[in-house]
Amino acid sequence: MRADGRTPDALRPVSFERDWTDAALGSTLVRFGRTVVLCTASVDDDVPRWMRGRGKGWVTAEYSMLPGASAERIRREVKDGRPSGRTQEIQRLIGRSLRAVCDMKALGERSVTVDCDVLQADGGTRTASITGGWVALHDALTRLVVAGSIERHPITTTCAAISVGIIDGEARLDLPYEEDVRAEVDMNVVMAGDRFVEVQGTAEGEPYDRAALDALLGLAEKGIGELAAIQTATVAQPPAAR
Amino acid sequence: MRADGRTPDALRPVSFERDWTDAALGSTLVRFGRTVVLCTASVDDDVPRWMRGRGKGWVTAEYSMLPGASAERIRREVKDGRPSGRTQEIQRLIGRSLRAVCDMKALGERSVTVDCDVLQADGGTRTASITGGWVALHDALTRLVVAGSIERHPITTTCAAISVGIIDGEARLDLPYEEDVRAEVDMNVVMAGDRFVEVQGTAEGEPYDRAALDALLGLAEKGIGELAAIQTATVAQPPAAR
Amino acid sequence: MRADGRTPDALRPVSFERDWTDAALGSTLVRFGRTVVLCTASVDDDVPRWMRGRGKGWVTAEYSMLPGASAERIRREVKDGRPSGRTQEIQRLIGRSLRAVCDMKALGERSVTVDCDVLQADGGTRTASITGGWVALHDALTRLVVAGSIERHPITTTCAAISVGIIDGEARLDLPYEEDVRAEVDMNVVMAGDRFVEVQGTAEGEPYDRAALDALLGLAEKGIGELAAIQTATVAQPPAAR
Amino acid sequence: MRADGRTPDALRPVSFERDWTDAALGSTLVRFGRTVVLCTASVDDDVPRWMRGRGKGWVTAEYSMLPGASAERIRREVKDGRPSGRTQEIQRLIGRSLRAVCDMKALGERSVTVDCDVLQADGGTRTASITGGWVALHDALTRLVVAGSIERHPITTTCAAISVGIIDGEARLDLPYEEDVRAEVDMNVVMAGDRFVEVQGTAEGEPYDRAALDALLGLAEKGIGELAAIQTATVAQPPAAR
Amino acid sequence: MRADGRTPDALRPVSFERDWTDAALGSTLVRFGRTVVLCTASVDDDVPRWMRGRGKGWVTAEYSMLPGASAERIRREVKDGRPSGRTQEIQRLIGRSLRAVCDMKALGERSVTVDCDVLQADGGTRTASITGGWVALHDALTRLVVAGSIERHPITTTCAAISVGIIDGEARLDLPYEEDVRAEVDMNVVMAGDRFVEVQGTAEGEPYDRAALDALLGLAEKGIGELAAIQTATVAQPPAAR
Amino acid sequence: MRADGRTPDALRPVSFERDWTDAALGSTLVRFGRTVVLCTASVDDDVPRWMRGRGKGWVTAEYSMLPGASAERIRREVKDGRPSGRTQEIQRLIGRSLRAVCDMKALGERSVTVDCDVLQADGGTRTASITGGWVALHDALTRLVVAGSIERHPITTTCAAISVGIIDGEARLDLPYEEDVRAEVDMNVVMAGDRFVEVQGTAEGEPYDRAALDALLGLAEKGIGELAAIQTATVAQPPAAR
Repeated sequence: MRADGRTPDALRPVSFERDWTDAALGSTLVRFGRTVVLCTASVDDDVPRWMRGRGKGWVTAEYSMLPGASAERIRREVKDGRPSGRTQEIQRLIGRSLRAVCDMKALGERSVTVDCDVLQADGGTRTASITGGWVALHDALTRLVVAGSIERHPITTTCAAISVGIIDGEARLDLPYEEDVRAEVDMNVVMAGDRFVEVQGTAEGEPYDRAALDALLGLAEKGIGELAAIQTATVAQPPAAR
Repeated sequence: MRADGRTPDALRPVSFERDWTDAALGSTLVRFGRTVVLCTASVDDDVPRWMRGRGKGWVTAEYSMLPGASAERIRREVKDGRPSGRTQEIQRLIGRSLRAVCDMKALGERSVTVDCDVLQADGGTRTASITGGWVALHDALTRLVVAGSIERHPITTTCAAISVGIIDGEARLDLPYEEDVRAEVDMNVVMAGDRFVEVQGTAEGEPYDRAALDALLGLAEKGIGELAAIQTATVAQPPAAR
Repeated sequence: MRADGRTPDALRPVSFERDWTDAALGSTLVRFGRTVVLCTASVDDDVPRWMRGRGKGWVTAEYSMLPGASAERIRREVKDGRPSGRTQEIQRLIGRSLRAVCDMKALGERSVTVDCDVLQADGGTRTASITGGWVALHDALTRLVVAGSIERHPITTTCAAISVGIIDGEARLDLPYEEDVRAEVDMNVVMAGDRFVEVQGTAEGEPYDRAALDALLGLAEKGIGELAAIQTATVAQPPAAR
Repeated sequence: MRADGRTPDALRPVSFERDWTDAALGSTLVRFGRTVVLCTASVDDDVPRWMRGRGKGWVTAEYSMLPGASAERIRREVKDGRPSGRTQEIQRLIGRSLRAVCDMKALGERSVTVDCDVLQADGGTRTASITGGWVALHDALTRLVVAGSIERHPITTTCAAISVGIIDGEARLDLPYEEDVRAEVDMNVVMAGDRFVEVQGTAEGEPYDRAALDALLGLAEKGIGELAAIQTATVAQPPAAR
Repeated sequence: MRADGRTPDALRPVSFERDWTDAALGSTLVRFGRTVVLCTASVDDDVPRWMRGRGKGWVTAEYSMLPGASAERIRREVKDGRPSGRTQEIQRLIGRSLRAVCDMKALGERSVTVDCDVLQADGGTRTASITGGWVALHDALTRLVVAGSIERHPITTTCAAISVGIIDGEARLDLPYEEDVRAEVDMNVVMAGDRFVEVQGTAEGEPYDRAALDALLGLAEKGIGELAAIQTATVAQPPAAR
Repeated sequence: MRADGRTPDALRPVSFERDWTDAALGSTLVRFGRTVVLCTASVDDDVPRWMRGRGKGWVTAEYSMLPGASAERIRREVKDGRPSGRTQEIQRLIGRSLRAVCDMKALGERSVTVDCDVLQADGGTRTASITGGWVALHDALTRLVVAGSIERHPITTTCAAISVGIIDGEARLDLPYEEDVRAEVDMNVVMAGDRFVEVQGTAEGEPYDRAALDALLGLAEKGIGELAAIQTATVAQPPAAR
């Protein structure tokens, strides 16, 4: 049994609060247990100069943690004059993941920025960001379809992510902070539908063998299948008209 | 009548959701109409090197707007490598204001950082930050008192702020964004109890005479009196035990 | 009696040396007692890209202190890679103030930069900068009128500024450094003719009541009236032909 | 057949030139086909302040590409004032990988920096850096053992890395640039002996299924086995005495 | 005849106004024709950490041009976040030059910063800075001797600098801006008494032969001899008591 | 006799390995004794915007030292966010020197960047960079001539550089690191054919008299004559066809 009472292959409670704010075209407050991320999708009717005239759009992501999101206050990165290496890795990962399920031709010459700001951090902030960011992005694009700005919905399938890891020799799904810091192996998996977009597995302690790697991949496939089902149910209903 | 149906001297609906997050020692989600700010107060049991050994504490503030907080996405300041002049002005103002009502001797050698992150922006973000930041700070310090870390509560009185301005020749209280952009005069007032901490009045268009200045000050005094009453009622009940 | 022998409502000796340098179109060395600021107004026959085609001009200001301007050497801000928050506040204030008295239509599509570099600092550097910057700006624009580049002089009225404060419970005008550091309340006031452009009052110690605020405003009105009279006399004579 | 005549599961010609420079304690010029990286290991007899007194060492890595390393000149990152996100990701990866095979207790309170500077780039620069960096690190530490500075060699096993990918539907080993840019899936694998340290697989185009993932992992295991054999043979002979 | 009526081997009018400001311990306003530089020498009774305990001092210099110092406004370097390469070259040159004539043992564990801020620029700003900076430094150190803080004056001899160049095939002394921009060869020479500290000669157009180099060196020796005589006469009288 | 057995007027062994890498159009590995610099010349068929339409080209240079180039590891400048003053001085010097022997009309509207990356440092890195950079530049331009892109070779004559200095009272040619650090006078000389482009002589200790200056210039002329002969012999044979 884990500290929060879950079995090794169970997700934490997951929820999506759509339109939590109303300034951006899409907005979702996603919770993975105590981890809370505000995801907004802002649409700009233009693309970077080097992409113009190709009839294709672009999706990018940015990620940040609020200073008060953890018990030990997190220094603002603007004070260092640049995003940390960790932040850049994460926002590149979110962007690549969401682009993998977006038909850029269908989007047309538009840019969407998905901002993922962590309001409370308890492990899995990048996986919650991808999973919640997908909902915000989906809602924003649905509104473009409803408004007649684009013809068909550019999202081709779900995109969800989860962390898995080996703690005390046991493979576990969806690690909270206290498990994350003592994981021997830590892996983040992103899937588009039932296919892989990203696999990033790191041995924090001892290197791991092929069998452990296979077990972790199986656990991630299971968890992402559940997340995708919740995502699908969530967006089945279109967002409120504006 | 104003666009949102208020009389010229009426505040927007104000609310404080205490302990909206639970990582920082104090946390408040404050709403001034559609403006939403998450305020957290993080306590560090140390002071900057140059203050050590004096038996006194320090309170500082930081302010930021999330990119998705407004309809036109706001560029992250970390991309420019520095906080803008506007951000620096605002966070200096919040810090000065809260320090004016905090007895640093009672606080002892501790630093408190009050972070004000604007989740949705509709005018008055700096005044909501001060007013909500005070609640987060008060709750954090109450917990220190309850824990026996400090003897008496360092907060000496309420600290609240409001914007006033002249729109179409009329003095109005608590400006939303659409009034703020076309105000001829824009003034922010911060008060500690019934005395002034800061008065910052700027003619955006025509310079103003002494009579207009006096009218705006009176309107601000009225609005701040109401905010202070809500603050007092809010903290009358101590925050939940942890 | 104050340390320098002045009554509470007296200005320090004020002087403007016009054309102190001759590279910029307007140049004034302003002295408020021991405070010395070199103000230059440089004209560029273009406006920022986003303003083109509107037939209007722009005035902006920059402010800096020379390292040797005070007894304790001041670190150059270029070493920190950015202007400090204080510098940015001040240069935004100078710019806003001068724009309030400049008819941008009359100026036409030109940019004027007013640089205020403090050669010696003894309190009141921002108020001396505004007041001296106005003379440099006025002279530069007079030269444009004389040269036939613009039809009518864009300056609509005087623009002057002064500091007031409460020291030992007494309201005083035009604070030198040694009064500034121990002021309980510190206020900077900028006026265009006899109307207000900016009021910025800060309680450094105890918050202040409405009566104190009113007294300070009255003192500032008196001092600015005197400065405006000197400004008017100064520019009555056009600058030397070039 | 691939453009360079290799079978899908063949490495490019690999070579290590030890002591290519003689300033750093360890130095290796590694070649993976046309990719050339100069790896140096510099030892400092101290650790960062926060690690002192624990009797343990630290290994870190830095990575850079010379501007003339590719046909299209690469802008120096110092001109942007910071390492790019890509550079930071790579140098974090190299550091983590080498630390996984270094016994920090055996190293003692010493810091080793492994610098990997790409002199010519033709794909696989990060995997060549890890593989060549291991040789430079091994040689530097051997010299410490020979000098009697440390008792036993801290390197516990080989550490090597290779890229694999799917091009035109075919899984291939060790991608040169022209394959890398059109790979549908791109994966970098790092192994310590025959166990995994890192797996990073990214779908550049279509997401991939579990079977493709398994095939790529197998290919990487084969290639790394060959690299590790060359590494072992290389360091069997100690570096020249100094 | 040159545009300003000088013979090829004549200096422009030179003057030193000592104690032009009174905040720094030494201060000189130096003029080389229309070039005006404010030099201040600020003393700190400490040395950088790495120099402590050796009983020796340090002299360093900083250089800047005010934006209004030339007809075309000069952008502030703080806006670029760093001093330009040109500024760094110049301030390193000033510092090296002044250190060459300062006995660091006699100075004791003190740091002197000589700030050279160009108020008006008409060529030769670096040579005026060195020559005027020497006077400010000398005066500051004289005051330390008078105050009994140091025993013997650390300045060992004069330090002066001048520019020479070839314009229209003619070797000329002390180039104003309009000659400087069209010089074929541009050389700056710094001397300590009658010996060389720095020679920096650059062919801007055609490379030059040894004869031209010799002619320029002779001209510089003559000019610096005259400057040194003025410096000696200037400091013969100690600065006013404070 | 010097530590390495040379007479005072002898160069270290010099070699140029052309096309050491093959990505850039010209590439040379230059050795001055133990100093090793990789020079590449990258050609861009465009010029900066402000130069377009004049039918002229541009040559610029960048310089860097690899961290492992010296026994004490050198911190990467990207970590400080900017090139150091020393780096900027050197790359400006290399650029000016090479431009002095390049006919920009013959080059046409092209930019060439000569990158000089020091792989091993033992004194004289800037002079080796200029001398080797000339070979890389010459080869790149020869390829443009061979390809018919330009009509006549833009290089007008050799460009070579050497350091000279006074050590223990003796004038010496081509200083290695251990002589450089204890030189009383240190001079770098750059020549185009048999004429001077740059002379930079600095007294590190005692100022030097005219006789010493003349001796150093003579020594530099001799050394550069030898370097130019080797350069001429090297490029007599065109680089390999591509």
